[in-house]
Amino acid sequence: MSETYTDSGGTSLAEKAAALDAVDELGKVRAQFVLDDTVYLDGNSLGALPRSVPGRIEDVVRRQWGSLRIRSWDESGWWTAPERIGDRIAPLVGAAPGQIVVGDSTSVNVFKAVVGAVRLAGGGADGGALGGTRDEILVDATTFPTDGYIAASAARLTGCTLRPVAPEEVPDALGGRTAAVLLNHVDYRTGRLHDLPALTAAIREAGAVSVWDLCHSAGALPVGLDEHGVDLAVGCTYKYLNGGPGSPAYLYVRRDHQARFDSPLPGWNSHADPFGMTPDHVPADGALRGRVGTPDILSMLALEAALEVWDDVSIEAVRRKSLALTDFFLECVAEYVPAGALESVTPGAQGERGSQVALRCGDAGGVMRRLIERGVIGDFREPDILRFGFTPLYVGFGDVERAAGVLGGLF
Amino acid sequence: MSETYTDSGGTSLAEKAAALDAVDELGKVRAQFVLDDTVYLDGNSLGALPRSVPGRIEDVVRRQWGSLRIRSWDESGWWTAPERIGDRIAPLVGAAPGQIVVGDSTSVNVFKAVVGAVRLAGGGADGGALGGTRDEILVDATTFPTDGYIAASAARLTGCTLRPVAPEEVPDALGGRTAAVLLNHVDYRTGRLHDLPALTAAIREAGAVSVWDLCHSAGALPVGLDEHGVDLAVGCTYKYLNGGPGSPAYLYVRRDHQARFDSPLPGWNSHADPFGMTPDHVPADGALRGRVGTPDILSMLALEAALEVWDDVSIEAVRRKSLALTDFFLECVAEYVPAGALESVTPGAQGERGSQVALRCGDAGGVMRRLIERGVIGDFREPDILRFGFTPLYVGFGDVERAAGVLGGLF
Repeated sequence: MSETYTDSGGTSLAEKAAALDAVDELGKVRAQFVLDDTVYLDGNSLGALPRSVPGRIEDVVRRQWGSLRIRSWDESGWWTAPERIGDRIAPLVGAAPGQIVVGDSTSVNVFKAVVGAVRLAGGGADGGALGGTRDEILVDATTFPTDGYIAASAARLTGCTLRPVAPEEVPDALGGRTAAVLLNHVDYRTGRLHDLPALTAAIREAGAVSVWDLCHSAGALPVGLDEHGVDLAVGCTYKYLNGGPGSPAYLYVRRDHQARFDSPLPGWNSHADPFGMTPDHVPADGALRGRVGTPDILSMLALEAALEVWDDVSIEAVRRKSLALTDFFLECVAEYVPAGALESVTPGAQGERGSQVALRCGDAGGVMRRLIERGVIGDFREPDILRFGFTPLYVGFGDVERAAGVLGGLF
Repeated sequence: MSETYTDSGGTSLAEKAAALDAVDELGKVRAQFVLDDTVYLDGNSLGALPRSVPGRIEDVVRRQWGSLRIRSWDESGWWTAPERIGDRIAPLVGAAPGQIVVGDSTSVNVFKAVVGAVRLAGGGADGGALGGTRDEILVDATTFPTDGYIAASAARLTGCTLRPVAPEEVPDALGGRTAAVLLNHVDYRTGRLHDLPALTAAIREAGAVSVWDLCHSAGALPVGLDEHGVDLAVGCTYKYLNGGPGSPAYLYVRRDHQARFDSPLPGWNSHADPFGMTPDHVPADGALRGRVGTPDILSMLALEAALEVWDDVSIEAVRRKSLALTDFFLECVAEYVPAGALESVTPGAQGERGSQVALRCGDAGGVMRRLIERGVIGDFREPDILRFGFTPLYVGFGDVERAAGVLGGLF
């Protein structure tokens, strides 16, 4: 933990919260969001509304669409938005420019990435025709379900088999048959942070291609895609990036791989000359190769406005505060909730924790409903998990203490 | 042509335009759009802004997202938007409810539909394992390029070959090997309307599965999906449906096929119990099976607001006016443009025409630029096509006469 959030000692938790808020290096960022008197700990599902968004969207609708209309594809920068906004996300996940495009849902990007990974590895039925032998895809056995569903489809279509493996068992499961490995950086239920640098290195050593899902880490902690040699990555933008409901996801293709990246969704937006309207597909250079069809401009430009909040914020500062918030929440829960009523399924070690805390209890659905009635917004995940997300940009230590107090009052 | 738009005879074209506008049964709809003093004949690329949209989007951003936040997935109907808005599009394309879902781009929906069609036909590599022999996909040789690119990817992934065929030659090309046929209802360049009823019947008789791309027909003319026995269809919503830049596309799966529709993009939104978070995918019943990931709510709800303009408008009335507008435009062009300067590549017969007119000329790019400078907005398509789209909801006969006059002045 940084100096900023160290314990001043010997005070009540409420006093401690106030002291931590007083020295919070991100405290001023909160004013850039629309908030109310609830404690919003569901930003890991849908981020709060940044104040920069409503005015931007009004301009996009009334002026860019309503007045400029078709001219906006050039004049308002609509056409180049996927790569421009990708470059804005890039520093938050440790990527140099030119490797990320925004568009489509996370599920669709998982499909591009997993099929693309099998092809990069020379695997699957296509690879077999070329003499390749890599015909297995490993997938995080604890993955958010859509990744597993889509990976199964990718396996079926590329002639591979799919094998679910717990992330920590991936090194032992890797072998000469492994084409691609799809992992979550942070587990959506438990909040566990997986060891991206070590797992990526192991996958690379085995000659396989890594695909990381950053949905629960991007915007919450440093990812270091370039530094750690990640091959492909995807993520959503409506959680810690606050892009709005269903805002478009993104795809990272490491620069070294771009010339060989072979998308299973080669729509006209990924063509080297999209308005040439030629019958054969000639893939564009670079990250553009990950584009598919016409981008959804309203959602995409809302995201672009939302990302402005990061102009003066470093992801390292966010991580410092995130760990302090989750540490403090666990401390308050231990103080306010009767022993034995709740069990944390989130790792206690900072290095194994994302920016959420998941607590297991009986009737978790009912407990969460009562929490929400009392102004503390988290969410419930089957079968017995209370999930609390901590967005350092707008959650304070006072919020955390209040949430734990309300939770304690329910037992 | 209906009684409404018959020629009163013996007057100038300007007088005729005024007379036609005076009796225009859709004239009152124009006030529901944001327009200016240009003549906007590019609604076949990006529809004009309906007045219902800005206020709705402001509410979606400020109240639904900003205030209700995560609760809006239920309370604001976000979660069910894809099928609810699909049902609103359904009557415009002749579909009973429960067969259309909105979401993703047209390209992504083409992929779902073509792979799904091959599987419905028992074709491809999967089908081969089951004893099937259908291993060919036919695609419109004059298609908008993205359909061809995506169909090629679908063919590669399902172990089929792809054969481009002119739509009129499809009946002769069909055979025992044909798994699926992907056709455009209206050609994006020439504006030619293909014979959907006859071609669909021929495809069905051959035991193959039809996929129609309705991008340039939905909202411009009756499609009759149910009546004509179309198997699968896709379309965009930002042209004649005025949904806004990059608004989500849609997928139609005929009710008879839904139980066997096997999507290559089985994301968690298509699961029978999406919040059960089970590791195996169990597809939902009905149209929901065409959903993939989290829907892009801003773009989707802008589309929903835009569709309100159809509340009191029949697609038959739109078709009547559309044909009258394109007839009148060709008449005005014949009068105002020196003979031989332009050649129409749009069929003269009403039954073979969509809602656009494409004119071929030398330096078409330069001509279109000068037209736009003079307030007449169409678009240029390589190599030599001036393309003019006529949206009957907001284009009047006076607009048409003015556009032809300005065009004539350039030669």
